Amino acid sequence: MDDSRFEQQIRFIVEIDRLKRVLRRTLLTDGSRRENSAEHSWHVALMAALLAEYAAPHVDLPRVIEMLLVHDLVEIDAGDTFAYDTAGQSDRAEREQAAADRLFGMLPADQARRLRALWDEFEAGTSDEAKYAIALDRLQPLLQNVHAQGGAWRSHGVTREQILLRMQPVQLISEGMWEWVVMTIDTVWAAGHIRSIDSIDRLS
Amino acid sequence: MDDSRFEQQIRFIVEIDRLKRVLRRTLLTDGSRRENSAEHSWHVALMAALLAEYAAPHVDLPRVIEMLLVHDLVEIDAGDTFAYDTAGQSDRAEREQAAADRLFGMLPADQARRLRALWDEFEAGTSDEAKYAIALDRLQPLLQNVHAQGGAWRSHGVTREQILLRMQPVQLISEGMWEWVVMTIDTVWAAGHIRSIDSIDRLS
Repeated sequence: MDDSRFEQQIRFIVEIDRLKRVLRRTLLTDGSRRENSAEHSWHVALMAALLAEYAAPHVDLPRVIEMLLVHDLVEIDAGDTFAYDTAGQSDRAEREQAAADRLFGMLPADQARRLRALWDEFEAGTSDEAKYAIALDRLQPLLQNVHAQGGAWRSHGVTREQILLRMQPVQLISEGMWEWVVMTIDTVWAAGHIRSIDSIDRLS
Repeated sequence: MDDSRFEQQIRFIVEIDRLKRVLRRTLLTDGSRRENSAEHSWHVALMAALLAEYAAPHVDLPRVIEMLLVHDLVEIDAGDTFAYDTAGQSDRAEREQAAADRLFGMLPADQARRLRALWDEFEAGTSDEAKYAIALDRLQPLLQNVHAQGGAWRSHGVTREQILLRMQPVQLISEGMWEWVVMTIDTVWAAGHIRSIDSIDRLS
């Protein structure tokens, strides 16, 4: 065993414990607290295995799962940026690139390259693997918010139209799943947990 | 798309959100709070990818990772049993079997069988995949406890000898890693964060 290589790997493994302290806006389904990015990553990685039949044929599922396990690591330095926070989104890419340099750079060079490539692939969003991963990364908070009576959508005044736009990656992978998503959002809207732009117009 | 199949899958995905509320005895590395079983599962699954070179040759890494993503799901019903709690361990198997029946039974039959088989394989601990997964499941809390100045070991009076016994699955997969583990435990012991049976004898 190469001791210094192993020490490097262990230091990285200890460092990423910090992802458990990065809080997302999403609540747990019982509304008891905000979700953190580590448990979110677990949830979405397991979803990739469970929903594999809806991915494009020949998708490399192990690569998708590994991609989802690392997709939020940069938040250790860059923090979680709320999907509907346009100000925060403006410098997100820059902050996350710096975080990727530092974090993946802690690993032995071969592993740093491999994980960085997985993260770059997720961010680019063009491979079938990345498209599937991104769709699940959007679907997971939808499930959380629906079961928390609107959850973060409601508390942050996110509209039905903003959510539909945010969920469009789901349509890229499965029309059936997309129909289910639209129906689900409409149910939450009909229940009064979220507003639509129309209703905001009527109020103003 | 088979709507009722998809609904079943979604119900399972929503149900397993509850793993985020199952608390382990292990603390985060900064000691700020107890770790939950969902974020632990993420951490150990990613460790499997990072430390793959120490697994037996020809280990099916994607199977290990999926195994680790599901290995603690039964705790949703059965709760987390502290590794050093001998009373809790006595009926653990029975409680967890019932939990596995209910939880995996929520899935479409083919997926229920697949995930149950993965969990059974982990519990049996005889395949090279399970041995590697179990070693990581022991190594991860060691890292957490070491970095939290003894963490749950210290607060629960766990001795150096109990920890060494608990860590033996690591020796089964890598002598080099085992040496590192023994050295690390001895460092924590020398720092006074944990006791040894000898020192307890001397005190009594």
